[in-house]
Amino acid sequence: MAQPLGTGDIPSFEFLEGLSLRLRQQIEFLTVVDRLKEVQRRTYIVGGNRRENSAEHSWHAALAALVLAEWGRTSNGGLDLAKVVQMLLVHDIVEVEAGDTFVYDEHLEPQKKEVERQAAERLFSLLPPDQAVKFRSLWDEFEARQTREAQFAAAIDRILPILLNFVNRGRLWQENGIDAGKVRRKNAHIREGSEKLWDLAATIIDEAVARGFLVATAEC
Amino acid sequence: MAQPLGTGDIPSFEFLEGLSLRLRQQIEFLTVVDRLKEVQRRTYIVGGNRRENSAEHSWHAALAALVLAEWGRTSNGGLDLAKVVQMLLVHDIVEVEAGDTFVYDEHLEPQKKEVERQAAERLFSLLPPDQAVKFRSLWDEFEARQTREAQFAAAIDRILPILLNFVNRGRLWQENGIDAGKVRRKNAHIREGSEKLWDLAATIIDEAVARGFLVATAEC
Repeated sequence: MAQPLGTGDIPSFEFLEGLSLRLRQQIEFLTVVDRLKEVQRRTYIVGGNRRENSAEHSWHAALAALVLAEWGRTSNGGLDLAKVVQMLLVHDIVEVEAGDTFVYDEHLEPQKKEVERQAAERLFSLLPPDQAVKFRSLWDEFEARQTREAQFAAAIDRILPILLNFVNRGRLWQENGIDAGKVRRKNAHIREGSEKLWDLAATIIDEAVARGFLVATAEC
Repeated sequence: MAQPLGTGDIPSFEFLEGLSLRLRQQIEFLTVVDRLKEVQRRTYIVGGNRRENSAEHSWHAALAALVLAEWGRTSNGGLDLAKVVQMLLVHDIVEVEAGDTFVYDEHLEPQKKEVERQAAERLFSLLPPDQAVKFRSLWDEFEARQTREAQFAAAIDRILPILLNFVNRGRLWQENGIDAGKVRRKNAHIREGSEKLWDLAATIIDEAVARGFLVATAEC
């Protein structure tokens, strides 16, 4: 896991309390979560010169939800798109304390859940109580992946690294010895959110194999 | 202005056309605009070790709109929050071609508008025609700052650099010889979007002067 950043050295906004206690709490939250810009993911950006961070990934994911919304609707009936976007804006915030976990590091999965839960507890409680409940429940819904909004948000969250890895000619896959079977298996839940985006993922994976960016699975 | 990144070296997604022409266009758009992660702004992140880029700023702004929504509603009546968030997700996309313009570089203002308009023309037209119109109109609405959603989005877009500059003890203001009067003048339109967020800006500016992060205006 990446290094946790913590909330230690954020300045006091006590001077805002005369204006509004709620506003003070909201500004403190926004200041603390700004540190998501320092959480590095494994994926390389399209420009290829560095890895992306979780804040810019969250922007790209929320935008992708707007652009690709029709593919959620088609397969699932009505979709509350505003909620999908909200989930994607908060889905990685816990990483400010918990760090990013590489999706292919399967041995980290059990401890990850509990560390992230504790981070959510601390971070969202910086907000005024009603908003702490609201934002925490968005994150819980995303994590549980039971609603169609959460399933579509998860599909978006997974399609983007596949796209970026493809654009970077499979560099990340090669660096980590990941084959096509593993990419398919770890991303299979895209299908819960959108049949079409799963077709998209499968098509990109096949093309990556055809171009030599990704090794075919041993079983094939 | 920062260096334009252009769209030259983005790979072809022709192989997606069998799946769907719309999907190919959407994926090409998402790939090109990923380069917003490479557009550097002047503002330093809360962590202070580097300047922020326009993609992570767009995430922070969209999240801030969710957190601070009540202050738009209070002063302006009903607010279409989903639209505010959508505007903030696309508001800087033109910078992929046009680069970021520092808000205090007033001499660049006239040429900036036309360069950005041309960039919008090219970038949004990567999308399927109906979406090109929709996303372009979101950007036009943001730029025109006539609706309450655009005015609130603009207020959010301006309050965040003030917050980040404060947290970084005025480093950016000092580096650029900016005084409190100039900060107030360049950000006065926050008030159109939210009286309360303008009070917040004024309070932070006053505190920055009191702590020696920002020099008071000569006229004071």
